[in-house]
Amino acid sequence: MWNENQLTQQLKIKYPIIQAGMSGATTPELVAAVSNSGALGTYGAGYLSAEETREAIQKIKTLTDQPFAVNLFVPEHVDVDEAQISRSIDVLQPIYEELNINPASKVNPTEINKFEEQIEVIIEENVPICSFTFGIPSLDIIKRLKDNNVKLIGTATSVREAELNEEASMDAVVAQGSEAGGHRGSFETPFHDAMIGTMALTPQAADTVNIPVIAAGGIADARGIYASLILGAAGAQIGTLFLTTHESAANKAIKSAVLNSVETDKVITPSFSGKPARGIRNDFIDKMLDYQDSLASYPIQHALTSVIRKAAAQQNRPEYMALWSGQNTRFNKEQSTQELVENLINEIESLRTSL
Amino acid sequence: MWNENQLTQQLKIKYPIIQAGMSGATTPELVAAVSNSGALGTYGAGYLSAEETREAIQKIKTLTDQPFAVNLFVPEHVDVDEAQISRSIDVLQPIYEELNINPASKVNPTEINKFEEQIEVIIEENVPICSFTFGIPSLDIIKRLKDNNVKLIGTATSVREAELNEEASMDAVVAQGSEAGGHRGSFETPFHDAMIGTMALTPQAADTVNIPVIAAGGIADARGIYASLILGAAGAQIGTLFLTTHESAANKAIKSAVLNSVETDKVITPSFSGKPARGIRNDFIDKMLDYQDSLASYPIQHALTSVIRKAAAQQNRPEYMALWSGQNTRFNKEQSTQELVENLINEIESLRTSL
Repeated sequence: MWNENQLTQQLKIKYPIIQAGMSGATTPELVAAVSNSGALGTYGAGYLSAEETREAIQKIKTLTDQPFAVNLFVPEHVDVDEAQISRSIDVLQPIYEELNINPASKVNPTEINKFEEQIEVIIEENVPICSFTFGIPSLDIIKRLKDNNVKLIGTATSVREAELNEEASMDAVVAQGSEAGGHRGSFETPFHDAMIGTMALTPQAADTVNIPVIAAGGIADARGIYASLILGAAGAQIGTLFLTTHESAANKAIKSAVLNSVETDKVITPSFSGKPARGIRNDFIDKMLDYQDSLASYPIQHALTSVIRKAAAQQNRPEYMALWSGQNTRFNKEQSTQELVENLINEIESLRTSL
Repeated sequence: MWNENQLTQQLKIKYPIIQAGMSGATTPELVAAVSNSGALGTYGAGYLSAEETREAIQKIKTLTDQPFAVNLFVPEHVDVDEAQISRSIDVLQPIYEELNINPASKVNPTEINKFEEQIEVIIEENVPICSFTFGIPSLDIIKRLKDNNVKLIGTATSVREAELNEEASMDAVVAQGSEAGGHRGSFETPFHDAMIGTMALTPQAADTVNIPVIAAGGIADARGIYASLILGAAGAQIGTLFLTTHESAANKAIKSAVLNSVETDKVITPSFSGKPARGIRNDFIDKMLDYQDSLASYPIQHALTSVIRKAAAQQNRPEYMALWSGQNTRFNKEQSTQELVENLINEIESLRTSL
């Protein structure tokens, strides 16, 4: 079954299961454990500097000799609107005060240099696979990565975005359905038009593009992976299920919130970052509901709330943390990453022989 | 594979494929063709009177001796707010004028008597299966139907709603994901909290309740049906794919709009009926965007726009029709219902042997 798979052959992995590169929640240990189990671990470096990215990659390489991926955020042009920043700080002020912290002092929104520096790190460190969220890099960058034998995985939230990834020579594309937790990768299709469920998005994307499609969004057990393959995907990407592993970087409060959540607890909010993202509803989200028009845009809002999220973690105040989570958390448990991946693989085999 | 299936045994059907009871779009011919092919046809009677419901049932019985279902809307209590009705008529006035019609003259919102009369028709006509949308009937009605050997299928849009259906002794429950077209059946979970994709909803519902779960939402080919079974469902319900069959009641303009739509064209709008529903974006939806707070509630808004939808159909003005549609329409084609169902069944068999 697996050895005929276009995706596993291309990425040189054993099983077409990809652990999503959730920036802030992955660790070198998580990534290496996934890759050592025959699936593809992904380090989420979206929010990191080039140097932090390099350190993580070097650590991963000490822990595994198997292929792994690094996920980067493709930067977009952002106009810094000082009035908007002031308005957002005013709205956030009561929370800064409650947590006894100062507002974020400087905001560096464009991050284009950082992205290009990260690309150099990917090449210098011989990272085998690089995946992208929030867009498609320039043709120059794509060529440079390909010339250096880096395999490229894009992210699409509509069939049109999958086509754009194929046109840009991505080796594979994640078709990310509306069930997904955290930020989705929409870049061409407006966010709300792109709220397409995985059951609908996967077969339509798979039939339209010729590159392998990786289904994502709401997949949290062997049944979801196997169903994705049936729907026409060449692989499946899983995020939230890895949040509660021992190796995840999510803190205890986040793990506990995810473990105790159900599918109706998750809402879409732009309030943490300026971009809509799915998380467990909490006081922060509720308090910001009336001020959606006063928030700064992405990634400025992310910078303005970063001190809040950091202080909330230190003070154990989950009501002010970003509890990113997909819609399928009833199968989450505290376990080792190796155990999680091995169980998934065994269960897929049983499913296959039982049907 | 099929003969061990709890759902097919219970409903006395050959294949666990259910054609959704889309009120206004089904015909006795459509329902009978589905049932004659070994799947379950469902007549959508939600908007019909008891007498119209009886006529349709009697017609279906002349066309098939196989089990079929009738879908009913469970009524909810509605306060008639005359000021709200006037405001909505004011908002709709330019469209009434453009179509050269008079505003809806009388509004009969509660419809509770109609529902009870429909239940009597179901029993008198020995309808084998009755399915419900927008809620769970009273325990008295459930008992009366069960005493008369009518099998009952409820609709859930969250795991909690699936549990409530099980507690109410439904024989099976449709777990309807956010990809679904038209109105979804939410009744306990608020609509936006219940926007859960089929990939996430199906396994979580299937693992929670003991009655058979029927997956729905975004399923439009054999892969979707087979994937639903893998995810833990006992069957799959398909709606939009049947809209473009020869036997569908959808008019030419609706069929053409569905055939030419893609997944990003569909939006959720409360403007046609007062309840949020998924359809292809058109001028009516766009024109109402700024007046969401001025519209009447369900089902009053439905009555107020019914003259618009009727005139739009007569005048071939799709921009004012309700173009209900799910998120997976790229597999829609004009074909006979029998051909559609037979192809699905053959393709499921090939999938099963290929994997």
